[in-house]
Amino acid sequence: MSATIHKRSRKAGLPPGTPVHIGVPRAAASVITLMGYDGENLVERRAATVDECLAARGRHAVAWVNVEGVHDVALLERLAPASGLHPLVVEDIANTAQRPKLEDYGETLYVVLRMLYYDESRHELKSEQVSLILGIDFVLSFQEGLEGDVFDAVRERLRTAKGRLRREGADFLLYSLMDAVVDSYFGVLERLSERIETLDERLERNHVAELSRPLHRLKREMIWLRKSVWPVRELLMSLERGETTLVRSATRVYLKDIYDHTVEVIETVETYRDVLAGMLENHLTLITNRLNEVMKVLTVISTIFIPLTFVTGIYGMNFRHMPELDWPWAYPAVLGAMVALGAGLFVYFRRKKWL
Amino acid sequence: MSATIHKRSRKAGLPPGTPVHIGVPRAAASVITLMGYDGENLVERRAATVDECLAARGRHAVAWVNVEGVHDVALLERLAPASGLHPLVVEDIANTAQRPKLEDYGETLYVVLRMLYYDESRHELKSEQVSLILGIDFVLSFQEGLEGDVFDAVRERLRTAKGRLRREGADFLLYSLMDAVVDSYFGVLERLSERIETLDERLERNHVAELSRPLHRLKREMIWLRKSVWPVRELLMSLERGETTLVRSATRVYLKDIYDHTVEVIETVETYRDVLAGMLENHLTLITNRLNEVMKVLTVISTIFIPLTFVTGIYGMNFRHMPELDWPWAYPAVLGAMVALGAGLFVYFRRKKWL
Amino acid sequence: MSATIHKRSRKAGLPPGTPVHIGVPRAAASVITLMGYDGENLVERRAATVDECLAARGRHAVAWVNVEGVHDVALLERLAPASGLHPLVVEDIANTAQRPKLEDYGETLYVVLRMLYYDESRHELKSEQVSLILGIDFVLSFQEGLEGDVFDAVRERLRTAKGRLRREGADFLLYSLMDAVVDSYFGVLERLSERIETLDERLERNHVAELSRPLHRLKREMIWLRKSVWPVRELLMSLERGETTLVRSATRVYLKDIYDHTVEVIETVETYRDVLAGMLENHLTLITNRLNEVMKVLTVISTIFIPLTFVTGIYGMNFRHMPELDWPWAYPAVLGAMVALGAGLFVYFRRKKWL
Amino acid sequence: MSATIHKRSRKAGLPPGTPVHIGVPRAAASVITLMGYDGENLVERRAATVDECLAARGRHAVAWVNVEGVHDVALLERLAPASGLHPLVVEDIANTAQRPKLEDYGETLYVVLRMLYYDESRHELKSEQVSLILGIDFVLSFQEGLEGDVFDAVRERLRTAKGRLRREGADFLLYSLMDAVVDSYFGVLERLSERIETLDERLERNHVAELSRPLHRLKREMIWLRKSVWPVRELLMSLERGETTLVRSATRVYLKDIYDHTVEVIETVETYRDVLAGMLENHLTLITNRLNEVMKVLTVISTIFIPLTFVTGIYGMNFRHMPELDWPWAYPAVLGAMVALGAGLFVYFRRKKWL
Amino acid sequence: MSATIHKRSRKAGLPPGTPVHIGVPRAAASVITLMGYDGENLVERRAATVDECLAARGRHAVAWVNVEGVHDVALLERLAPASGLHPLVVEDIANTAQRPKLEDYGETLYVVLRMLYYDESRHELKSEQVSLILGIDFVLSFQEGLEGDVFDAVRERLRTAKGRLRREGADFLLYSLMDAVVDSYFGVLERLSERIETLDERLERNHVAELSRPLHRLKREMIWLRKSVWPVRELLMSLERGETTLVRSATRVYLKDIYDHTVEVIETVETYRDVLAGMLENHLTLITNRLNEVMKVLTVISTIFIPLTFVTGIYGMNFRHMPELDWPWAYPAVLGAMVALGAGLFVYFRRKKWL
Repeated sequence: MSATIHKRSRKAGLPPGTPVHIGVPRAAASVITLMGYDGENLVERRAATVDECLAARGRHAVAWVNVEGVHDVALLERLAPASGLHPLVVEDIANTAQRPKLEDYGETLYVVLRMLYYDESRHELKSEQVSLILGIDFVLSFQEGLEGDVFDAVRERLRTAKGRLRREGADFLLYSLMDAVVDSYFGVLERLSERIETLDERLERNHVAELSRPLHRLKREMIWLRKSVWPVRELLMSLERGETTLVRSATRVYLKDIYDHTVEVIETVETYRDVLAGMLENHLTLITNRLNEVMKVLTVISTIFIPLTFVTGIYGMNFRHMPELDWPWAYPAVLGAMVALGAGLFVYFRRKKWL
Repeated sequence: MSATIHKRSRKAGLPPGTPVHIGVPRAAASVITLMGYDGENLVERRAATVDECLAARGRHAVAWVNVEGVHDVALLERLAPASGLHPLVVEDIANTAQRPKLEDYGETLYVVLRMLYYDESRHELKSEQVSLILGIDFVLSFQEGLEGDVFDAVRERLRTAKGRLRREGADFLLYSLMDAVVDSYFGVLERLSERIETLDERLERNHVAELSRPLHRLKREMIWLRKSVWPVRELLMSLERGETTLVRSATRVYLKDIYDHTVEVIETVETYRDVLAGMLENHLTLITNRLNEVMKVLTVISTIFIPLTFVTGIYGMNFRHMPELDWPWAYPAVLGAMVALGAGLFVYFRRKKWL
Repeated sequence: MSATIHKRSRKAGLPPGTPVHIGVPRAAASVITLMGYDGENLVERRAATVDECLAARGRHAVAWVNVEGVHDVALLERLAPASGLHPLVVEDIANTAQRPKLEDYGETLYVVLRMLYYDESRHELKSEQVSLILGIDFVLSFQEGLEGDVFDAVRERLRTAKGRLRREGADFLLYSLMDAVVDSYFGVLERLSERIETLDERLERNHVAELSRPLHRLKREMIWLRKSVWPVRELLMSLERGETTLVRSATRVYLKDIYDHTVEVIETVETYRDVLAGMLENHLTLITNRLNEVMKVLTVISTIFIPLTFVTGIYGMNFRHMPELDWPWAYPAVLGAMVALGAGLFVYFRRKKWL
Repeated sequence: MSATIHKRSRKAGLPPGTPVHIGVPRAAASVITLMGYDGENLVERRAATVDECLAARGRHAVAWVNVEGVHDVALLERLAPASGLHPLVVEDIANTAQRPKLEDYGETLYVVLRMLYYDESRHELKSEQVSLILGIDFVLSFQEGLEGDVFDAVRERLRTAKGRLRREGADFLLYSLMDAVVDSYFGVLERLSERIETLDERLERNHVAELSRPLHRLKREMIWLRKSVWPVRELLMSLERGETTLVRSATRVYLKDIYDHTVEVIETVETYRDVLAGMLENHLTLITNRLNEVMKVLTVISTIFIPLTFVTGIYGMNFRHMPELDWPWAYPAVLGAMVALGAGLFVYFRRKKWL
Repeated sequence: MSATIHKRSRKAGLPPGTPVHIGVPRAAASVITLMGYDGENLVERRAATVDECLAARGRHAVAWVNVEGVHDVALLERLAPASGLHPLVVEDIANTAQRPKLEDYGETLYVVLRMLYYDESRHELKSEQVSLILGIDFVLSFQEGLEGDVFDAVRERLRTAKGRLRREGADFLLYSLMDAVVDSYFGVLERLSERIETLDERLERNHVAELSRPLHRLKREMIWLRKSVWPVRELLMSLERGETTLVRSATRVYLKDIYDHTVEVIETVETYRDVLAGMLENHLTLITNRLNEVMKVLTVISTIFIPLTFVTGIYGMNFRHMPELDWPWAYPAVLGAMVALGAGLFVYFRRKKWL
């Protein structure tokens, strides 16, 4: 996360609308793909430039141009004049440290979302920015193109013409892409849920010492997750209720559905936060409890043996005139007294539930 | 809870409106029952399909179709075209991990609630999703059908024609079913209240060591409970004030009544949360207090006996030239001095209230 | 509190509008009193039924019917048809676990408040439900009738015709009764304030051990108090700004006055909560501080005497070849060295402020 | 604070509008002063009654009547009929435990504020109620008259005709008085700021033991301060935006200015609260740290010397058959081994950073 | 921070609109610079007075007057009548302890912002007040002029005519200056991010003792940062949506962009606060854990050796009749028993995971 913050300051002082790539650099070139379709036909091909794709717009009911890799600033700069996008939008596409947001530019809608996935090899939560631009007959999508892609299921549905997607307009495609992104959150929630359970079991089995770090790491991931998901709610609310004519009312019912999913994700995250806060609190209590246990053992041992050792010390003194030392039954008597004292203290601690 | 989350990700990538059962699987087939009634007549029977029930609609003033078991996706898929329900509603019925919500589809109202009960054998709070669909002359209710049912009292009132229920329309039936669900929350609150009292008594009697886990388990159940009940408030608010014509104004007074009950449940849950937070805090203080007690005992014993043992050590040394050792009154003098020192320290600690 | 929650579940499944007494049972019969008055005359008598009282309405400008004891469900059931009250109101009167609320039924206004008092004998905060119904020329008031009554001052003012009360309408009587209830909160605040001061003094004097329980008990009472008072604010706000014609605008100025009192009570409660939270925090710090003190004593004693005892141990060994033992000045030298070591450590700890 | 709460309950049961003095009693009689002025003339004198002052209203553009001492209930009771004030206002003037508020009675505006000052001798934050009444050509101000007065600067500006005050109307005088009150909060903030710095320096220098009490005392004063200032914001907001014609729009710009000052005070108080919460947290951490230090010393000493003492104990046993005792090099060998063991443990603890 | 608070009270009692410099005093004289420009020409020069600059207004499309140093109260006092600024604005410019705010005076807009930078030499977060005044064809900017300046990039863009700035009006210049201020926050966030990471690594490596102070210092800076940035959001919101005609709608899109940046800064600060709170909590847990470790070592050593030392004490007693002492195999037997006891305890503690 700090990597993006570091670079962010490089933009200070530049004129607005200058695209500067902020994010993890990527070696490979950007990949541009076009899917043009209507109820009957589907054209799918790779393209060299976005202009080329946009030129094909008239030929299909809906054109979906997907760009993987937003580090190619030159490509983005050419985009602005050709597509009629506001320079600020182009700047925002390149800056992959955006928070989710919706901007209505009249003829286009600009949506920023964050795709989330759990990097299994590094045990880290990762996020990737997805920029979506909706026009009357096209959708432009920009991904960082790091790893994986949640849009494959949408492509598959377009190819097989399953469901309503092929028969609907560009707004339904936008919905489908947003739905795919929000659905990816549930996978992340599953991973978090599993880890909470694992840690909870270890808490139950009282393995407290090694729990502090994983609990706090989990807590921090929850903070990042929350930051990524929370604004999506507001975004969907204003998209569903917005005045834009680009989204038809039939599609708004479906947007309400994603909205519900987002609320569900947010509430689950909040619940996990509460659960985790409880676990951390419980963890601290268990540590204190264990300290209590340790101290009780020390106190019992000390309280029993320190007085007894004192007694042995007395009869270990070398005074010449210690009449007890000569009595024949003195040694067994002292031993007996010490056993009695020790046993008495033992019983006393038992009663006090210290043992 | 994690079980449902796990399966939730299976839906990722499917077209919207595809019902997928998310929840605890159930072996038995779904059971469909129909109760058709007006002020004079009541017909009650089991049916094979929901279509069959809906066909009977015209014959009664109100038709109530109750489906137990939403795992039968085939049954649900047939439902959509027959009943005119939106495919998203059918998808939501099958997904039993919904949060309570209200959706107004013009000719139908879709309400999701969660029935709560306390599983006595496993000492766990359980919840079951109830989907209610209100049409002009019918109510469709879907339950997971796991165990028990809070609708028996409503059935009984229909059969005996007690109260206003038989004389009122479908909206009053919806109210009665929702009321039954909300009433079930009070039973859960009672169980929580009992457990809080039990734990509180143990706190009072200072049995702190074994309290950490039950307190935190209770806290977690409170979190889940809150998550289930909180959205009901908003739902009832918008139902009561909503613009739908399916709910007559006479019935809205009754919805206000359930709204009040829900607010009462929420406030009680919040109060319990505060009480529980106080108990956890008190618990931690008591543990620290006990640590103090333990340490005081250790310190008193050590402070009295360690110096005394040192004295015995001195006269246990084997130096040839230790004139005191030969004095006849040295031993009793040392013993006396040690008793005096010990007694002095004892009095000192008494004064400091350490004993 | 749990008592009422327990019984609450008995209502589950009953038709709406069925009055069921929920609360502490009371042996004695309900007492019904009527005060009918206008500027000149005042009639005051006990009545057998509420109907009898309501029949007398026309004869006075204002009729006040006070019912003590709402456990007599039969009496309440007869009330509904006679007075034109909504069955849900009658049900709510019997259920003494209501939260404060206001309901506008057009011809009547229904207000629920909670009277608070401090039970001196049991050292407990107690609350009693007061239901007030305002009609155009009457006020019906229902109390649980447990102990005491805050309405005596109002009765006295009616009898002596002091102030404006006798000259005003039923809405002013409602105001006067509500004012009496809200005034009772100040008495409870005084008791809380006294107890906070007592506990604070004990904190100041460092008597920490026995403070945990009273502090937490106080905290819990604050939680219940807050729950009772908080909704009154909202209630008064909507009564003052409401559209009801039963409350004349001249009376609304007075309602604003009670509103201000309620806000004052709420803010004082919130302030006490903050103060109490600070005291609990301070208490925990003092306990930890005391633990520190105890540990320092232990450490100082141990650190001084354990090495000294080790030295005596060395010269208490029985090796045959220990040349020091035979030196004549060895014993005083060792004694001197030990005194020097002990004194050095003592000075060291003084400097470190451990003593 | 509790003093006022105690007396507050004396009012319970009295008819509304009965002035009862609630606050710290004051021996001296109330002092009434009149300042009547317009752009050219200024009359300043002491008066016997408020009526006398109000009678002089017509003679000046603006009449300012200041009453010091609101304990004289008789004076206040005479006030109500003469000045046309609502009886509830007169009651509120006498009750010095009011929270800041604004009431619009059409021909008069009633403002309650709290003047704050730091009592240097008792090291306590004190507050005094100021009631201001604005009419079309007069301002009535009521103070408790305990000590000091923040209005002297306003009087001075009136006398010297500096600034716009003499040329403006009664609303500008109200503004000037309110501004003087709000300005007094900055003095209190300065004192708080100084004390925070002092305590912070002591925290930095690790003087933790004696910090718990002053930190919590400061926290409590912050709670009271917040309670006094917070409602002023809302009050000024509604005064600035209110519909009253008594305040001209030119004056509203100035009210916006006090509003900004109040927001600044509130934000500073909130910031101090956060800073103080951090200091308390830091304080607790330092105490725990110090406990750690103490325990480490104890553990190091014990761990080094307890095993060594055990070794001396072995060779202090009196068994007849202990061949080592007769070896000539045994004593130096044992001494050497003990030194080696002690040094080894010392190095070990150094490495573990315990020393 | 306290320095400004101290001086703030000097203003108490002065008439409104009197400029008093509140802030860090500065020796050098104020520096006034003028940049007048339109699409083609740019005039840049130093000026002696602001009046001189304002006189030049008509000659350029846009005139930007920048004043460094607001301690020169005389200069500010002359400003008010010349520029038509409200006296309260002039007073606010001199008071450098303002919170960010927006004030609309019809013909001018007054904006207060805080520039933030990290003082590398003192390791402190510093802030400087920037006052911006927008007229129809001019912008007045006032800085404290302490060190550095974030406006250089804007000047450079004006000189090189890069971007749209030279072709746009005064409102775009205002936007550019505000953008430069908000961009400076990202630099501060980077520094905070670096320090969080450094501290986090030290936490990971368990260096807990020396972390308490830097963590709390960081927390406090976060509090000040939040106080400076939070009001900017509200300010930009009302500027973007405001009714002023000074800001054209084309520029509002750009203001929305700064608004988004501010939200991003605020959310990042909030996230850092959460992260820091987690680190502090983790830190406390680690300290308690370490205490546990220390106590375990002490307890293990004591529990093993105290009983053993007691055994040696027994056989060190000088009773005449202790038959064991004469048995030849007694010494090795006792030694063996002690080794066995010690080893047994060692194994026991191993099993309990104390070692």
